[in-house]
Amino acid sequence: MTESFKVIDVDVHNEQNDSALVPYLTEPWKSRVAAGGIGSVGSGYHSPVGVLRRDAVPPGGGKAGSDPDHMIKQLIERYDMEYAILTGVIYNIAATHDADFAAAICSAYNDFLIAEWLGKSKAFKGAMAVSTLDPVLAAREIDRLAGHPDIVEVIISSAARMPLGQRFYHPIYEAAERNGLPLALHPGAEGAGSTTAPTAAGYPSRYIEWHTCLSQTFMTHLVSMVCEGVFVKYPNLKVVLIEGGIAWLPGLMWRLDKNYKALRSQVPWLTKLPSEYIREHVFISTQPIEEPDNPQHLIDLFNMIDAENIILYASDYPHWDFDAPTEILKRLSPEAKRKIFYENARKLYRL
Amino acid sequence: MTESFKVIDVDVHNEQNDSALVPYLTEPWKSRVAAGGIGSVGSGYHSPVGVLRRDAVPPGGGKAGSDPDHMIKQLIERYDMEYAILTGVIYNIAATHDADFAAAICSAYNDFLIAEWLGKSKAFKGAMAVSTLDPVLAAREIDRLAGHPDIVEVIISSAARMPLGQRFYHPIYEAAERNGLPLALHPGAEGAGSTTAPTAAGYPSRYIEWHTCLSQTFMTHLVSMVCEGVFVKYPNLKVVLIEGGIAWLPGLMWRLDKNYKALRSQVPWLTKLPSEYIREHVFISTQPIEEPDNPQHLIDLFNMIDAENIILYASDYPHWDFDAPTEILKRLSPEAKRKIFYENARKLYRL
Repeated sequence: MTESFKVIDVDVHNEQNDSALVPYLTEPWKSRVAAGGIGSVGSGYHSPVGVLRRDAVPPGGGKAGSDPDHMIKQLIERYDMEYAILTGVIYNIAATHDADFAAAICSAYNDFLIAEWLGKSKAFKGAMAVSTLDPVLAAREIDRLAGHPDIVEVIISSAARMPLGQRFYHPIYEAAERNGLPLALHPGAEGAGSTTAPTAAGYPSRYIEWHTCLSQTFMTHLVSMVCEGVFVKYPNLKVVLIEGGIAWLPGLMWRLDKNYKALRSQVPWLTKLPSEYIREHVFISTQPIEEPDNPQHLIDLFNMIDAENIILYASDYPHWDFDAPTEILKRLSPEAKRKIFYENARKLYRL
Repeated sequence: MTESFKVIDVDVHNEQNDSALVPYLTEPWKSRVAAGGIGSVGSGYHSPVGVLRRDAVPPGGGKAGSDPDHMIKQLIERYDMEYAILTGVIYNIAATHDADFAAAICSAYNDFLIAEWLGKSKAFKGAMAVSTLDPVLAAREIDRLAGHPDIVEVIISSAARMPLGQRFYHPIYEAAERNGLPLALHPGAEGAGSTTAPTAAGYPSRYIEWHTCLSQTFMTHLVSMVCEGVFVKYPNLKVVLIEGGIAWLPGLMWRLDKNYKALRSQVPWLTKLPSEYIREHVFISTQPIEEPDNPQHLIDLFNMIDAENIILYASDYPHWDFDAPTEILKRLSPEAKRKIFYENARKLYRL
């Protein structure tokens, strides 16, 4: 890849094998996890194509995506990536029921991430995970690790009990802002454990429906964050919406702006249009990018939302629907490509 | 309005005063409603602008939209409408807990609609309401009244306990198809009573958020109906999505088609792309139409989904966000206007 098309990948899932977190846990969690693992953190919906690329299984065995050296070869070197934000998968633990357990697992994962991944490549940067089940514990964890030079983001699950703009969650945003870290939302456990049903009309039957409807949690959280005044209260907070799709965003901005004009008395703390808060505070990642029959339609849609300044490239390696940087968005202008594949992320994460 | 711009309005809410259904009920419901009304069927979210136009209150008093003569003057004659589909509001009773009560209320309303509305103007056509709480009772009600010459549609609430494609609901679709009636979905009770939370991430705090997120139930139901094979099983069924917005549809079709290509083994009964089923079976109504700053964006978006053949004009009279036919979609071509404001509905409802 040429100098004019540098790449930062904002969603790379380093997995860990079942026993990997044990050394980083204290009791009572250490014995529990040593004996029975951390338990399922998936949605419970079955994907017939699996969720992980088979070729991402390391040569020595173990989970796909669990070996730094294999990832460096298969992803970083192959696509000449300057940086990859390691997002893990542990944010999904927020779908469990016990807030203390979820917090302990996140802390152990963060220590594991720092000790066993971040030093392995100059390209690796880390998203530290916190659980939304106890935002005060989450804020404490952010304060504990935000100073690490390779931690560039806080990541939380989009699967939650309530819309994420609500006041209960504000300690997380306060801590992220105070420490100068963007906050990422990632799906995966929607409908599991203590979270709400994964769609606005309950539980669909199959993974294809569940996956298609994932954008809905993002729509709710975004509307909630704007309307609850999160961006008024935390004016330097940046939010990154990962893996929830993009094509719904123009319509949502229009609908929310229109409603705001009639119903602004309900949100008197807002001093500008909802879409303006979104443009100033929110980034959205590409994978899985929508693919209309006519690729120009996606470009037209991008132009409706100033997309080249708010979209970040993500591969979602090593998941089944991986998007290589060479395979998507070929019709973008060179300038838009430079921003989406590199410059927007470089600025956001101060790389 | 000239001959070249005839109007059919597919969403006109005739209201009824509290006691209006009593004469059409039998015991034990008659005494219950006479004593205490039918109970709340709203969402529970408070709109600071109300939900009804104050000027739609009849000169003699009563609820806005409850007097046929006033509606004829204020809507039908003023905008020279050829037909108005009376949708009522009683479909919301499906948010209650008792399936027998909901079925009785719907039957009483349907008799009331026929006796006190449909004969008052040649322009009035009726959507008969059924409750989704007991689809077998709903099918029986459809069979009872579908033969009435002015009943042109079945209407159900989009607020439900499950995604509406699921097998539990199929008796409704079988009856609608057998009787040649389109099936409309209408929001309003999302989150109330026995329905699921109104968004994919639970209960937002305010009406502005609830209303902005209403599209989500429609997204879920549409994905569910396609994936569960409703349109394979009932090849002549037509579905009308009322008041859920439009701008989300292109992205949803792209996302579902893309997922179908990878995950079709989960829905082997589908023989074509999900978007093809949507184009052949689904209509979507205008109000509340999205209003981007640049109105051309909406037209561009319409062009992505063959909008002129699937969109139906709706005013939502007498609700607060009424869209007059003279005020929206001014940039459409005359041909697209003719279809959206008139021809698509004329064909669909065989008027």
